[in-house]
Amino acid sequence: MSKLRGFQKLTFTYEALQTWFNALQIQRCREVSVPLTEAFNRVLAEDVVAKEDLPRFDRSAVDGFAVRSEDTNGASQPKPLLFRLTDAEVLPDNGPRYAKPVWTGQPIPKGADAVVMLEHTQKKEEKMEISVQVAPYGNVSRQGEDVKNGETAVKQGTRLKPYHLALLSALGNTEVKVVEKPKIAIIATGNELAEAGTERNEKQIYESNRVMLCGMCCELDTEPLDLGVAKDNVEEIVEKIQIGLKIADAVITTGGTSVGGLDLVPEAVNKVGEPGVIVHGIAIRPAMPTALGMLEGKPVMILSGNPVAAITGFEIFARPLICKMLGLQKEETRPTVEAKMTRKVATALGRKNFVRVRVFQKNDDFAAEPVSAKGSGTISTMTRANGYVIVPENREGLAEGETVTVHLFADVESGNPNV
Amino acid sequence: MSKLRGFQKLTFTYEALQTWFNALQIQRCREVSVPLTEAFNRVLAEDVVAKEDLPRFDRSAVDGFAVRSEDTNGASQPKPLLFRLTDAEVLPDNGPRYAKPVWTGQPIPKGADAVVMLEHTQKKEEKMEISVQVAPYGNVSRQGEDVKNGETAVKQGTRLKPYHLALLSALGNTEVKVVEKPKIAIIATGNELAEAGTERNEKQIYESNRVMLCGMCCELDTEPLDLGVAKDNVEEIVEKIQIGLKIADAVITTGGTSVGGLDLVPEAVNKVGEPGVIVHGIAIRPAMPTALGMLEGKPVMILSGNPVAAITGFEIFARPLICKMLGLQKEETRPTVEAKMTRKVATALGRKNFVRVRVFQKNDDFAAEPVSAKGSGTISTMTRANGYVIVPENREGLAEGETVTVHLFADVESGNPNV
Repeated sequence: MSKLRGFQKLTFTYEALQTWFNALQIQRCREVSVPLTEAFNRVLAEDVVAKEDLPRFDRSAVDGFAVRSEDTNGASQPKPLLFRLTDAEVLPDNGPRYAKPVWTGQPIPKGADAVVMLEHTQKKEEKMEISVQVAPYGNVSRQGEDVKNGETAVKQGTRLKPYHLALLSALGNTEVKVVEKPKIAIIATGNELAEAGTERNEKQIYESNRVMLCGMCCELDTEPLDLGVAKDNVEEIVEKIQIGLKIADAVITTGGTSVGGLDLVPEAVNKVGEPGVIVHGIAIRPAMPTALGMLEGKPVMILSGNPVAAITGFEIFARPLICKMLGLQKEETRPTVEAKMTRKVATALGRKNFVRVRVFQKNDDFAAEPVSAKGSGTISTMTRANGYVIVPENREGLAEGETVTVHLFADVESGNPNV
Repeated sequence: MSKLRGFQKLTFTYEALQTWFNALQIQRCREVSVPLTEAFNRVLAEDVVAKEDLPRFDRSAVDGFAVRSEDTNGASQPKPLLFRLTDAEVLPDNGPRYAKPVWTGQPIPKGADAVVMLEHTQKKEEKMEISVQVAPYGNVSRQGEDVKNGETAVKQGTRLKPYHLALLSALGNTEVKVVEKPKIAIIATGNELAEAGTERNEKQIYESNRVMLCGMCCELDTEPLDLGVAKDNVEEIVEKIQIGLKIADAVITTGGTSVGGLDLVPEAVNKVGEPGVIVHGIAIRPAMPTALGMLEGKPVMILSGNPVAAITGFEIFARPLICKMLGLQKEETRPTVEAKMTRKVATALGRKNFVRVRVFQKNDDFAAEPVSAKGSGTISTMTRANGYVIVPENREGLAEGETVTVHLFADVESGNPNV
């Protein structure tokens, strides 16, 4: 019972992150070559420079007829001009006007400098009527317009999306160097935890944070390593942390980090080595008992056992950490939306509060309905919400009707906006 | 050259989608049981109903002391009340006031109905001073508060996010039934295409759409099957489509779908069987030559060979299709943001125009800068943009300073919004 005293001091989130990152001096993970076909969503480890122009020749941007643009001078709907058709590689350079059929993407024949779109042409016996005047390079994709030889096509630290893969492939790349997925060891602690599907006593609950934290690691495309559950026993926790340090790039624990009698994780972390726990107790709600540490130069995140607090701690501390380990150009953040609070919410002054809300369309606006429940153990508040609002330390809540920025972790209900 | 005539008629996107879906009568893919640890991002195939209350007992939402709430009546900072400490399973039900230490998540002992937070207590020799009055069930997570026995915990058609996994695990589930990933065959066509890394002649370009479309399938968690490149030859295209129909749930082709002389894919599709092509030519820019079909009851999407047009066609037609094949409750859409156009953009009347833009923060607002290039072959417009604006058929463009809704396919630059 001697530990029952609450936190002596809470550290502001910004300060906690700063202190932790300063101690960690985070290195980007190693790089590895992968085939382009396996590079989706990986993070590029080096600038990829174009070794040729893209396109590598002037090409038609439309289906139509390649012409010398000056030959179209004066052409109009009422007064079309007649062109001779040719299939030659080079447009004859004197005499009458010539037009060569070209499909989208095909090289512009030598001598031509523009393309007339199909719909501005009309077949007239063996010739072609053109009813529009085109400027030089009209409907032509110029050589190097997409990317120039020597230019950086995709920058180091880019998460490779489908269109990056297309660009890299179009430039002839078949392999790319990407950042290895950081390995993150996940450890749950607590005598009260039983594995789902196993026997449990009447005070035990089914463990549920590991599968969740593994999922959150997968969301950022890292490799979670599930180390199972440790009992509330310093030696057992120490042992699992040591395994984690051996096989992973970072260790995340969940549970046993408050100041209760069975909150042994910070003690275990300090027993493993120096500096151990760097910050413990954050001015944030939920996730106040979060602790941040370092062992063998590797980050150790000590998250609450409450699922919502664990999620919040992960969002605030693990997300920016992982983004740095991946060498991302910038932190990947959740999309945001402005919405009006449907009712007021009280929050604690001096803490950064994460208020879960359900955003929905209301006429032309978005409304944010607080999804409340006692404590941060209520995981269904996350499945019912689709975002969170951050109430800063100097506020005591949100007013009804107040416009807030919601950070979305799930879709807002709406129809197909494209059709 | 006989085919050089342009489309006779363009179909509006909404009508095209409707017609196609009516013909397809899309069935959700089969279901399959997977361990919960492999269920991240899969789509739930059936409602999961809670088989017990969660929590299954009243539990403490904080670290503190379980008490009978009525015993705290009148307690205050200046006039705290003294409680005897007990470790009994049941709070003694008469005589003096009793308090039992409880950590967050522990069951409330019988007889108690509230918890006093640690910070409102003070040890006084063998007793505990309590300086706050608590209401019945104050700081208590009630049995069934999260999910009640018999209640649907997670609905069929939900994409399983980390917090869904937590909820399912907390309810004792170790396996879940999810929807099988739709298999999507990807075929590129065109004599002008050479595989990256291979020899090419001077008119050929490196093929780049397959790796992109495979990535777009992966983004929606489906299984792309890359069938390679077919030459502009009806038999070769037919053969690949037939393979696709054999091994996949849907077929996507790219290239050869305009009305040029080498646009043989619609012809090949019609050769494979009935009904073949259902819609060809959409009032949309880019992606006008997109065609939609059905063979052996399976969807066939005939996308443009231009990468940006292929992306647009995929967004408009493949995305809602895949969402239905996955049995998703609702179509997964891209996040949106309101932004002000930095300059005007002209678009074609009578077409739905997809204007690529780069959204960036500008003071307290978002600005959208058009990322323009000739034609839709310029893939770097996608890597430089982070979203698109849809200009409807009855508009001829966007004005400078106009507020538009941007559909984001990549992050907007900003700092960590959480800290």
